[in-house]
Amino acid sequence: MTAIAGIDPRTGDALPPVVTATATADVAALATAAAAAAPKFGALSPVQRATILDDCADAIEAHRGELIDIASRETGFGEAKLNGELNRAAYQFRFFAEVVREGSYLEATIDPAAATPMGPRPDLRRILIPIGPVAVFGASNFPFAFSVLGGDTASALSAGNPVIVKAHDSHPGTSKQSYDILAGVLENSAAPKDCLGIVYGLSAGAALVAQPAIKAVGFTGSLTGGKALLSIINDRDEPIPFYGELSSLNPVVITPAAAEERGAQIGAELVASFTVGSGQLCTKPGFVLIPAGAAGDAVLTAAAASLQDATGHLLLNPGIFNSYVTAAEALAQRGDGTVISAPTAQAGGFAVTPVLFETRLNELDPAIIHEVFGPLTIAVRYDAQDLLSCAATMFDALPASLTATLHTGADEDHQTLTALTALSAGHAGRIIFNGYPTGVAVSWAQTHGGPWPSTNSLHTSVGATAIRRFLRPVTFQDAPQAVLPPELRDGEVSIPRRIDGRMRTGTE
Amino acid sequence: MTAIAGIDPRTGDALPPVVTATATADVAALATAAAAAAPKFGALSPVQRATILDDCADAIEAHRGELIDIASRETGFGEAKLNGELNRAAYQFRFFAEVVREGSYLEATIDPAAATPMGPRPDLRRILIPIGPVAVFGASNFPFAFSVLGGDTASALSAGNPVIVKAHDSHPGTSKQSYDILAGVLENSAAPKDCLGIVYGLSAGAALVAQPAIKAVGFTGSLTGGKALLSIINDRDEPIPFYGELSSLNPVVITPAAAEERGAQIGAELVASFTVGSGQLCTKPGFVLIPAGAAGDAVLTAAAASLQDATGHLLLNPGIFNSYVTAAEALAQRGDGTVISAPTAQAGGFAVTPVLFETRLNELDPAIIHEVFGPLTIAVRYDAQDLLSCAATMFDALPASLTATLHTGADEDHQTLTALTALSAGHAGRIIFNGYPTGVAVSWAQTHGGPWPSTNSLHTSVGATAIRRFLRPVTFQDAPQAVLPPELRDGEVSIPRRIDGRMRTGTE
Repeated sequence: MTAIAGIDPRTGDALPPVVTATATADVAALATAAAAAAPKFGALSPVQRATILDDCADAIEAHRGELIDIASRETGFGEAKLNGELNRAAYQFRFFAEVVREGSYLEATIDPAAATPMGPRPDLRRILIPIGPVAVFGASNFPFAFSVLGGDTASALSAGNPVIVKAHDSHPGTSKQSYDILAGVLENSAAPKDCLGIVYGLSAGAALVAQPAIKAVGFTGSLTGGKALLSIINDRDEPIPFYGELSSLNPVVITPAAAEERGAQIGAELVASFTVGSGQLCTKPGFVLIPAGAAGDAVLTAAAASLQDATGHLLLNPGIFNSYVTAAEALAQRGDGTVISAPTAQAGGFAVTPVLFETRLNELDPAIIHEVFGPLTIAVRYDAQDLLSCAATMFDALPASLTATLHTGADEDHQTLTALTALSAGHAGRIIFNGYPTGVAVSWAQTHGGPWPSTNSLHTSVGATAIRRFLRPVTFQDAPQAVLPPELRDGEVSIPRRIDGRMRTGTE
Repeated sequence: MTAIAGIDPRTGDALPPVVTATATADVAALATAAAAAAPKFGALSPVQRATILDDCADAIEAHRGELIDIASRETGFGEAKLNGELNRAAYQFRFFAEVVREGSYLEATIDPAAATPMGPRPDLRRILIPIGPVAVFGASNFPFAFSVLGGDTASALSAGNPVIVKAHDSHPGTSKQSYDILAGVLENSAAPKDCLGIVYGLSAGAALVAQPAIKAVGFTGSLTGGKALLSIINDRDEPIPFYGELSSLNPVVITPAAAEERGAQIGAELVASFTVGSGQLCTKPGFVLIPAGAAGDAVLTAAAASLQDATGHLLLNPGIFNSYVTAAEALAQRGDGTVISAPTAQAGGFAVTPVLFETRLNELDPAIIHEVFGPLTIAVRYDAQDLLSCAATMFDALPASLTATLHTGADEDHQTLTALTALSAGHAGRIIFNGYPTGVAVSWAQTHGGPWPSTNSLHTSVGATAIRRFLRPVTFQDAPQAVLPPELRDGEVSIPRRIDGRMRTGTE
């Protein structure tokens, strides 16, 4: 059995192995067991499921110390980032407990029998039900909040589906510890056994996606990794939904007025945003449109100053480190732009130097238009007289993103604002006004998603509606009351429902 | 240019050609033009869009005579079926106008800025927006309601997307006429030009799905056809959702008590259900579990009697006709069952003889488990002492379906009912109690969908929520009121919204 070990990013040395690669036969056995557990798990009441989710949150917090300890060793992230991420993971489970209790996510709908222009209509009652076992791929850059303890796991369990996680090779120990914690909660709950599994190693991940028992895949990772999984899915007998969050350049537009009013502030904040988490965030601002001229210069001057304090950045693993170093060196050798760097990183492990590359929109080379994971962004200077057409040129040059950010003046022209907003909506799933794309709140209205290649989904992977990815509708026609799900029976219920076409908010 | 002509099912002779196959370059031009029109069409107000939908309904009804005339010639369907289908198509447009006006489909959600355990949350406002041009593949068996004038067209337009229809080769003239009617409405509306297109011929359909400008595909047709389109989608640079409604056997379970209480009635009604539309319905009951013994015999005796009146059935085209004849002849030659036939069809055109094949569950041969389009069903006798395990055996032997139907006794045991319902929900998207799967009401609570291979979607293709297939979420973070969609602004609006986690029904 192949041992799988993390690597300490501070030294580049392998950590003691904690797990072994999962054999294909074991992957199949886990998937089959999960399929057998699915109907029972799906039949738990909303209150039972919400209790499990709350208990998961409590257990995560109860094991804070040991989780942060191992994650720090495996990822090189500081305690502040890891504490924040653990808070996020726990909050996410509690939030989904609230979503399950609130009940709107079931989309309960009752159409009483009636005459229609199409003829008589039977009594029809619709609800969403779980789809079956879900495979979740942990991400390298969020050892808690987008891994075993992450949003895909929480939303798939909330929907009533068993989950099998593919642990990310960057943090196998953290993944195992996380799994043990959740498995402990499930064992002491109303859930049947086999509702949670974990597999280790690349080939186990591939085998997992190919399992007939798996009914959907949640993935946060690279475009290359996502495409590899998609191709496995395309070879399955049964196609299944693939929810991939893949790649994002997150353009930022700074209008001339914004640069005039608060250029220095924006410059400093931008550096904070593109270096947080050592720039290993899918929402890192990767391309920033900055006006040519003095106001735009002030943005870059402030950014350069902030970069002087941007030290101590470690990347997660050799792959990310090597890609970053290659990309940064390639930029330094280009003749069409200027590199503004942080102080050179101390050698050792996966330490890197943050970089800002300044170029001009009319010289923007498609060769540099790709995601670089790490603390690097590209400042693109544009003709301040020509904001709208320059913004359109940049958005069209970039692939679609998770986010688009607009920095505007206090009295920005309405037509300009409207045009920039429409442009952004066409190219992204979240539009940030006078803020930064990093930081993705878990809430009812959140969208963490966008057109291809940022995701492969018409859904968000963060926030309440992420649960919809793992549900399918069923309609009961002329069913006896006794066999209907309680949420579809006659009489008052506490959840929002649509009855005869009209939304009712329930008795609460 | 290759002329495309329908065939008269009454004679098997080609009709005069009315259209020519669309060249690939023309397909590309239509898709590009639709993409250019998309933002303007998507920006129409809900009232403007609803008006267009209502006008489509009016126009369809205004052209009833000529539409039915040409559809009758091309499909062989009788006037009653075609009139009903036209009513359905018009109703569907009006229903989606109501859905658009009601506004829930936007899923408008406002999370005001607040402190959370994750830290401060910005103001987040979420809404669904159109995805862009949609390709719609017309079905052979519904020249109106699942073709140019059908639910995919209506729901994609309702969502605010341009539509390009691939006309089905079985009714090119009906398709052209339908297109002309809708195009006329759009021309005299607030919509920009190029919001509706049509292409003819198999290779134009393939080229359409490959167009980068196309953002989703709606398809109602065979599993083979669906798989061919999926494989084109899998070869695209940008994966797009494929909403295929593909294949369905629609099992029916008749409990011993139901057979005892109303066996003869069920037998007669079953024949009506599997022969309506000459059995060319995706919801045709294809496998019927009937108890062995006298009560079950009564079902078949009544069915055999009803079959004596089941004459005059025409199939749509040579492909469907040949498949049907081959399947019916293969059943007649088997040693493990009995064929009960209607009177032999008059020769000529695509006239066929309805067939009921009776076999036993413990001898059910996987070779006969496949969809046969046309008036044919398979009665599977089972041991009345062992209802639940026999039903489980049959459901497991069949691929998943759009529907499952349960005929039960007035005092059926609660546990039996519950177990049969759970079994059905695991294998289908609609469960019919003491009725028949044919006939799919257009309503809020409808589900016309189910697990693979019945569809390739976690959505319905009929009813209000079909619109969700063609929308994606966008979230506005800290946006100025003026650039928000009206539905997301502060203050009262008339549509249901979720504000700070709580559903509000709007001022109406």
